[in-house]
Amino acid sequence: MERSHNMTMLVDFYELTMGSGYFESGKKDTIAYFDVFYRKNPDGAGFAIAMGLQSIVEYIQDLHFSEEDLEYLRGKGGFSEEFLDYLRNFKFTGDIWAIPEGTPVFPGEPLLTVRAPLIEAQLVETYLLLMVNHQSLIATKASRIARAAKGRAVMEFGSRRAHGESAAILGARAAYIGGAAASACVKADIDYGVPATGTMAHSWIQVFDDELEAFRAYARLHKENCSLLVDTYDVLKSGVPNAMKVFEEFKPEKMSIRIDSGDITYLSRRARAMLDQNGFHDCKIIASNSLDEYLIEDMLMQNAAIDSFGVGEKMITSKSAPVFGGVYKLVAVEENGKIRPRIKISENTEKITNPGFKKAIRFYDKSTDKAVADVVMLHNETFEEGEPYEIFNPEFVWKRKKITDYYTRELAVPIFESGKLVYDLPSTEQIRDYCKEQLDTLWQEVQRFENPHTYYVDLSDKLWTLKQELIEGHKDF
Amino acid sequence: MERSHNMTMLVDFYELTMGSGYFESGKKDTIAYFDVFYRKNPDGAGFAIAMGLQSIVEYIQDLHFSEEDLEYLRGKGGFSEEFLDYLRNFKFTGDIWAIPEGTPVFPGEPLLTVRAPLIEAQLVETYLLLMVNHQSLIATKASRIARAAKGRAVMEFGSRRAHGESAAILGARAAYIGGAAASACVKADIDYGVPATGTMAHSWIQVFDDELEAFRAYARLHKENCSLLVDTYDVLKSGVPNAMKVFEEFKPEKMSIRIDSGDITYLSRRARAMLDQNGFHDCKIIASNSLDEYLIEDMLMQNAAIDSFGVGEKMITSKSAPVFGGVYKLVAVEENGKIRPRIKISENTEKITNPGFKKAIRFYDKSTDKAVADVVMLHNETFEEGEPYEIFNPEFVWKRKKITDYYTRELAVPIFESGKLVYDLPSTEQIRDYCKEQLDTLWQEVQRFENPHTYYVDLSDKLWTLKQELIEGHKDF
Repeated sequence: MERSHNMTMLVDFYELTMGSGYFESGKKDTIAYFDVFYRKNPDGAGFAIAMGLQSIVEYIQDLHFSEEDLEYLRGKGGFSEEFLDYLRNFKFTGDIWAIPEGTPVFPGEPLLTVRAPLIEAQLVETYLLLMVNHQSLIATKASRIARAAKGRAVMEFGSRRAHGESAAILGARAAYIGGAAASACVKADIDYGVPATGTMAHSWIQVFDDELEAFRAYARLHKENCSLLVDTYDVLKSGVPNAMKVFEEFKPEKMSIRIDSGDITYLSRRARAMLDQNGFHDCKIIASNSLDEYLIEDMLMQNAAIDSFGVGEKMITSKSAPVFGGVYKLVAVEENGKIRPRIKISENTEKITNPGFKKAIRFYDKSTDKAVADVVMLHNETFEEGEPYEIFNPEFVWKRKKITDYYTRELAVPIFESGKLVYDLPSTEQIRDYCKEQLDTLWQEVQRFENPHTYYVDLSDKLWTLKQELIEGHKDF
Repeated sequence: MERSHNMTMLVDFYELTMGSGYFESGKKDTIAYFDVFYRKNPDGAGFAIAMGLQSIVEYIQDLHFSEEDLEYLRGKGGFSEEFLDYLRNFKFTGDIWAIPEGTPVFPGEPLLTVRAPLIEAQLVETYLLLMVNHQSLIATKASRIARAAKGRAVMEFGSRRAHGESAAILGARAAYIGGAAASACVKADIDYGVPATGTMAHSWIQVFDDELEAFRAYARLHKENCSLLVDTYDVLKSGVPNAMKVFEEFKPEKMSIRIDSGDITYLSRRARAMLDQNGFHDCKIIASNSLDEYLIEDMLMQNAAIDSFGVGEKMITSKSAPVFGGVYKLVAVEENGKIRPRIKISENTEKITNPGFKKAIRFYDKSTDKAVADVVMLHNETFEEGEPYEIFNPEFVWKRKKITDYYTRELAVPIFESGKLVYDLPSTEQIRDYCKEQLDTLWQEVQRFENPHTYYVDLSDKLWTLKQELIEGHKDF
């Protein structure tokens, strides 16, 4: 029952089969380039939030095979002793570049690039995708929900409906970075500094002989901040009147009520009126119960009197779109020190990969500081910053646009160089602030939920030409 | 960056707030009963598969607060030193009954019941639900997908799209128990004995100068079982012909091809014809690419020539229904040694809880061995096994049915008694076999995907009457 926490073996079996195959075929030292990218934003959104890098850094640093792991592989059969010996001393010696956590990103651009000996680069595929896919998904969803709340606090309440331990903990971290104000998940606070918060469940009320007694018992212990759950029996006939009685008796510094069922929009407005009539203007109203960005938008449109939202399952599972489709594709190999681009052809043209070792450059408009386009180009391409730069749609190449008055930044930064960490991991708080800042560089049109503007992610002339050549050649070289 | 693997702090903050409140209100030793149950099967299914118990057992046995945890709580404020002292020696001392993993279960029946001092019973809520909800969800989905495949093997390939580490690992375990034949996830094999399997990705093909060379390199190393991915360039023009050439050259004992893109139904039939024409009748065809139970059913209906399926994101996230809505509700407290049932009233009548300390009895028809109904009754109720037993619909009480010629079994078994584990955890393999056996006790009508027959989960006369009394009294006692 004892389980190792080293995640080297959290790997698809085929990574090991291929690793062994590369080893036996004399290809283990071939240097390969793999890109992580995705093809579609979840929920039909205009962008996603990159996430998962911190977990990846921890994983890469801890990458090694234990004797038990090797014993397991020996037992499976099909792995030579030479290969197992090689794994015994295995560690990651390559380079990784990545777009920092919290950055708004778009389909088709490399979120992360691995350059490493083939076996190493292959082996990390499963874990890298697992982290990027899960955490980007939740940060992206949380960003939507937080934006729907228009400045009101959104609390992440979903641990119990998450997909297991790390989904709850790292999901809470991603939600916080994406825009949630706090989480119910205590371990996310301990491990990542996500502020933990929470007051009472219905069981608290039920344990006491009646609601009033339950409220009093709670208020007695929470004089600074008293939040009462008012829907155990009847919000308007019982919950709110009892809450006001108790606020009157105990005069807590801060007070709030939480409504967790029923027609929350209606109830919140009625509750607000009752509270105001009785002088409790400072009492906040918290709403929870299967909320998401659409419900929150609707409630606010109907003037729901809600000050903050508790959001559970629909955020922590990204229920309406629970898969982030990041993929990991070979884009080049080195032969005699020369980078040879590779392409994956597909009948679905949008599934054809962008070949080569690349970088993504974001162009910002100088007068508005808004992002106007990302251009994916070959890693060694240069352009004269400040000179007009012509971008074009890679599918409809006659769609061209000249960008002037811009400044740029390269999105990815070096994370590992020859296996050594060269990146200072920012704190959760720093990433959250950065994410907020970066969000401000996106036009509202890109941020809206329905039919958002498609942000330009274009290929440079050189990369586009290379891709066409490889497609026409229909062969990898 | 060092993180504790003890999951005591994977808890919603309010469990601790309430725990502290019970402590300060002199209620910490009150014995409480909580039920885990759920209200709706995911995907509109006729049943679900209970899962999560093994993780819960491990959690309960390890439940304790470290000095760091107490320090954290002290830092948060609002917790008295007396309470923190109490937590220092905290362990679980109560009783738990649960329906074993792999059992088909239905909405409204207690999957797990905790009887423990109030603080203990409250504290475990988050983790218990997290495990039951995640793992039951995936086992239920996997059971559907495996049934759609009608005896063909289904391989779980979803790690990279799972919601984090434990979603991948325990998801693979749940999928295997639910009916998957194997998983790509190596760690699930090491930790839980889920057979790991896998061959190659497109990157394998791309690394070599051409497909034929890549196939040869693979076949050279896999003479017993050679599985080739044939869709990197063109399945019918390149992949299948090259695979046949290599099978001819290397004559592996077992051979198969995998198709991962395109119109798989069409391609599989064309590939089958090509293989058969060339004498490769034994070559199996494996299909993968965003499959689920509906697609698999469709493909088989169109006579796709597929021998086994690789299923990824749609199983490991239960994409079409990614939330299992298990809840944890207070159903009774003991006062002076007497069990006093509690109820949670709600405007949504289906959200009103079933009060009291209960048990669920499954009735099987003697002549067919099929399950005919579950009856939830009070824990101390008895009935004369063999005598006709009248069940009735708890909503439409005039709908009555007399069951004769039956045998019964109580679904839940004791797991912990006074904090001590009294249950022998079965192996993964045993649970998988048991699950399969149990599935055979369900009528096809309950198992079908569209509009399944609603299996009876009725309340005993006594329980029904108690519930009505409590609703009318509109008060908990």
